[in-house]
Amino acid sequence: MRRILLTVAYDGTDYHGWQVQDNGPTIEGELNKAIERLTGTVTEVAGASRTDSGVHGRGNRAVFDTDSTIPAEKFTAAINTFLPSDIRVISSLEVAPDWHPRKVRTIKTYEYRIDRGRVADPLRARYSWNVWGELDVDAMRRAAGYLIGEHDFTSFCAAASQVEDKTRNIVSIDIEDNSDDEMVIRVRGYGFLYNMVRIIVGTLIQVGFKKITPEELDGILKACDRTKAAETAPPQGLTLMSIEDVDPDYFTE
Amino acid sequence: MRRILLTVAYDGTDYHGWQVQDNGPTIEGELNKAIERLTGTVTEVAGASRTDSGVHGRGNRAVFDTDSTIPAEKFTAAINTFLPSDIRVISSLEVAPDWHPRKVRTIKTYEYRIDRGRVADPLRARYSWNVWGELDVDAMRRAAGYLIGEHDFTSFCAAASQVEDKTRNIVSIDIEDNSDDEMVIRVRGYGFLYNMVRIIVGTLIQVGFKKITPEELDGILKACDRTKAAETAPPQGLTLMSIEDVDPDYFTE
Repeated sequence: MRRILLTVAYDGTDYHGWQVQDNGPTIEGELNKAIERLTGTVTEVAGASRTDSGVHGRGNRAVFDTDSTIPAEKFTAAINTFLPSDIRVISSLEVAPDWHPRKVRTIKTYEYRIDRGRVADPLRARYSWNVWGELDVDAMRRAAGYLIGEHDFTSFCAAASQVEDKTRNIVSIDIEDNSDDEMVIRVRGYGFLYNMVRIIVGTLIQVGFKKITPEELDGILKACDRTKAAETAPPQGLTLMSIEDVDPDYFTE
Repeated sequence: MRRILLTVAYDGTDYHGWQVQDNGPTIEGELNKAIERLTGTVTEVAGASRTDSGVHGRGNRAVFDTDSTIPAEKFTAAINTFLPSDIRVISSLEVAPDWHPRKVRTIKTYEYRIDRGRVADPLRARYSWNVWGELDVDAMRRAAGYLIGEHDFTSFCAAASQVEDKTRNIVSIDIEDNSDDEMVIRVRGYGFLYNMVRIIVGTLIQVGFKKITPEELDGILKACDRTKAAETAPPQGLTLMSIEDVDPDYFTE
């Protein structure tokens, strides 16, 4: 039995998120089906990040175990043959049989794209959130500063989440605002809670509109109360860009 | 009766091109329906460029006549209310009652995007052609030079075209190749034949692969024979970016 690690990119528009669901197609479900068709064996991949319905991926990870004799790097093209064109395996390699994508310490990079046009651009609508009006970008950057580092992010986690420990560590939040028509908010961290990046983005936009001051972020964090932060930004602006190993010997679980 | 000029952007993926057809939805058809629902009057827009099935637009133009008293600039938001989200009116203004988008001298700018990845990127697949392998970009630029200016472009026109005079004037062809993962071929001209940009792109790619030498372009042009040029590049890479008036007093028809 060998364990194969896949890097996976997808347009999440037409999927009910990563994780297998009863009510519609998912990225994980399509990967399972494609690998089953290729190898003839029932397969369940294990993913690194269970992205939400409508969220996109460029560098998500999944592993599966197989008795197939296909060389590890050949799985990329072979699995792609059986996948719909909006999901692509980018690379494949063999890892240790006990390597698990949720048990390695990594930094995840998310990008959230904002279409700044007065009219939402139909060529970017699948991959961005249209926000029109003046934004105070300096205030947004100051507000983001309060979120860097290790904090209890209960205020920035969907209320429905069952996770007990809501302490997470954000490495950086960069706001790229170097074009008239697009803003990119890039968030890097060791792990994220359910909807966390989208609640951060929704809150930073309210800071940009001066509905929230940067200094209020401190109180919002400390309140540990989801109702104190702003509304969740819509899913289609969000893409999981990459997952980097930071210390392969360190296991978080 | 007033004549209103719209600038229109669209994701062409789910449409059978610009022009009204019996066999499926079109950009023109959706505009007609939206304006009819807004004004209560049967309307037929006249477009500047009848883009093909699957081709996108950022700056296409359409005019329509109306008795509505809506201020010209308010049509943008009003029509968008009745359009699907993959078609957007970008701006609206009143023009002279005899102004016609196909009877003004303009320069059209098309961009053709090429995804250079080994695996087609699912987040760009709707808007690019995946071409993997080494391309000789210098040779492509030299080949493009043969096409600049006024020529009979019969070799670069779909054989089915009914147009008699196939002389057209290309202003410039720029090949942007400043990233590892994308190439953009930007073609500007006073007018184009059916499939002309896509046949040019298909041919330049064969030059990049050294299947055609740059110098052969001269003979291909002079042959006035569609079979001498390469295959038509697929539609989804192509976007009509803009239409600029160059001399509003000069009418081509």
